[in-house]
Amino acid sequence: MESIESLGEFGLIKRIAKTITIKQPTTKKGIGDDCAVIDTTADNLKVVTTDLLLEGIHFDLTYCPLKHLGYKAVAVNLSDVCAMNARPQQITVSIGVSGKFTLKAIDDLYDGIRAACDRYGVDLVGGDTTSSLTGLTISITAIGEQRTGKLSYRDGAHENDIICVSGNLGAAYMGLQLLEREKKVLHGDKTSQPELKGYEYILERQLKPEPRTDVVDFLEKIGVVPTSMMDVSDGLSSELMHICTQSDKGCRIYEDKIPIHEQTRKMCEELSINPIVAALNGGEDYELLFTIKQEDYQKFQSTPGPEIYAIGYVCDKDKGRRLITTGGDEAELQAQGWRFFSSNTSDK
Amino acid sequence: MESIESLGEFGLIKRIAKTITIKQPTTKKGIGDDCAVIDTTADNLKVVTTDLLLEGIHFDLTYCPLKHLGYKAVAVNLSDVCAMNARPQQITVSIGVSGKFTLKAIDDLYDGIRAACDRYGVDLVGGDTTSSLTGLTISITAIGEQRTGKLSYRDGAHENDIICVSGNLGAAYMGLQLLEREKKVLHGDKTSQPELKGYEYILERQLKPEPRTDVVDFLEKIGVVPTSMMDVSDGLSSELMHICTQSDKGCRIYEDKIPIHEQTRKMCEELSINPIVAALNGGEDYELLFTIKQEDYQKFQSTPGPEIYAIGYVCDKDKGRRLITTGGDEAELQAQGWRFFSSNTSDK
Repeated sequence: MESIESLGEFGLIKRIAKTITIKQPTTKKGIGDDCAVIDTTADNLKVVTTDLLLEGIHFDLTYCPLKHLGYKAVAVNLSDVCAMNARPQQITVSIGVSGKFTLKAIDDLYDGIRAACDRYGVDLVGGDTTSSLTGLTISITAIGEQRTGKLSYRDGAHENDIICVSGNLGAAYMGLQLLEREKKVLHGDKTSQPELKGYEYILERQLKPEPRTDVVDFLEKIGVVPTSMMDVSDGLSSELMHICTQSDKGCRIYEDKIPIHEQTRKMCEELSINPIVAALNGGEDYELLFTIKQEDYQKFQSTPGPEIYAIGYVCDKDKGRRLITTGGDEAELQAQGWRFFSSNTSDK
Repeated sequence: MESIESLGEFGLIKRIAKTITIKQPTTKKGIGDDCAVIDTTADNLKVVTTDLLLEGIHFDLTYCPLKHLGYKAVAVNLSDVCAMNARPQQITVSIGVSGKFTLKAIDDLYDGIRAACDRYGVDLVGGDTTSSLTGLTISITAIGEQRTGKLSYRDGAHENDIICVSGNLGAAYMGLQLLEREKKVLHGDKTSQPELKGYEYILERQLKPEPRTDVVDFLEKIGVVPTSMMDVSDGLSSELMHICTQSDKGCRIYEDKIPIHEQTRKMCEELSINPIVAALNGGEDYELLFTIKQEDYQKFQSTPGPEIYAIGYVCDKDKGRRLITTGGDEAELQAQGWRFFSSNTSDK
């Protein structure tokens, strides 16, 4: 059986490179030189994003299989490209691996990376492999493209724009809570099996998120460029705060409009968590949060495509950023969650 | 005094972002959104390279000040862009930092990163900051540009091309040997001062390498596109092997043509190392190694510019890859170093 050590860095890179087929016409040169080479076309812009993932901080190999980890590491970067209303085309992947990992483990990781690349038509064009003293380090950079004038930034929301989200929220967070609970159970009793039945959806949301390239394609199809956009990685509340701050606006969102999956609700009930808390703070759903002009809203309804949920609207900055609860109360949104109003609040 | 914890991730990013001024006309959007945005022009190609640096593997903070580390981490990536005959324009920087680092330490690191960016007119356009369980992790991605047809790959060397190098070799390696020696001395005797006098040049080559953007500019000026090019990061021997393998060629280089600095020779003498070993295997010099057509050679001599050393020539693959020693002997080059011929060699 080959080992990582016997292969060496160049051997490992070769092993990875030979499984890769180039799919994007803009990829002129992939792995094998000092740099990858990417073609450009007039009137197109490139977007670049990067993420650093460290074992023990961003992932726990106790319950995250390496194949899933590879897939997710790619997916979250592609999601950032989508969040600009651009299309991902290339990624680079660097890994640092300690002695505890076998070659099989690295193959599993790259199987996941390759699966995500294949699904989204993205080319793995370069990277770096190195040994590490402790644990696994993954650094991914994604590059995408979009025509000039079609990108969506965080700072373009206008008053009366409709706030939309591309799917249900809080599921990935509740999937994580379930995994954490089962991990504790397993630590206490080695013979028991984790009880995950009936929660497949929220587990998949946590372990295998999908970037919404279909939403970017749909927006193109119906001719809508969101006035602002982000992906929900830290939680709806936190992302809304970014859009409001950078656009210098306020917002209203409605509790009863925020899509929450039935498994999310069920898990919330089991763990005594308010589902709206999971939706506002949870994060890692990687849905797209965006604002559109009112007149664009009908375009979503007249063309079949992915379901888009209108959850509120953009207002003047002075009106604050608030959640309207199902009971009709107003609560101020905060970076992590929200806080019910009190008339003598001191930190408005 | 502020701490990293009190700032938080967003605070840290803001702190970094506010010290940055955009210099490149192609940088349309830097830090502050889901992606950076980079402009393209017709007839230009983008090149991308990335490096992952881990404490204890790639650097030792005992003798590498954080400011130098930041500078070097950027420099080595810009060097990879130069090695394609392209010009670096943007970088992203991701860091993972454990609790042992103060905010001052991170500021020092970014001072070095910024100094390299300023010197080479490169924009820091994005990245990621995260906590880590152990030590410091740095991941840098560099993006550059060059016109179609002007890039140099590893696989374009032709028979009779002249092999050139842009500066002396082995100095960075001997600088490292000196630092290692002084580290041992310091560990033994806490009162003694490291003896570095007279070795400033080789220390600087190790601690503060410079990417040869000036050589890329000069090549443009004299209208020469190298038929193949790499930067010397792993050692002359190893890089030559890559060019020969990928170009399907052999080579001859001459011991007495390989430029070696006088401080390198002196340190080699002190440590009983053959200077040619340091030059062939040392690595980290970040000089450009390239091949040019014979008729292009006179262009280097007729225009003032950085000194370029012709060290040998490309030959047919069947003639092997050999070093001609000062004494006139031939030795076969190997990935790490070289080996004198014996007529009954079994692994030719």
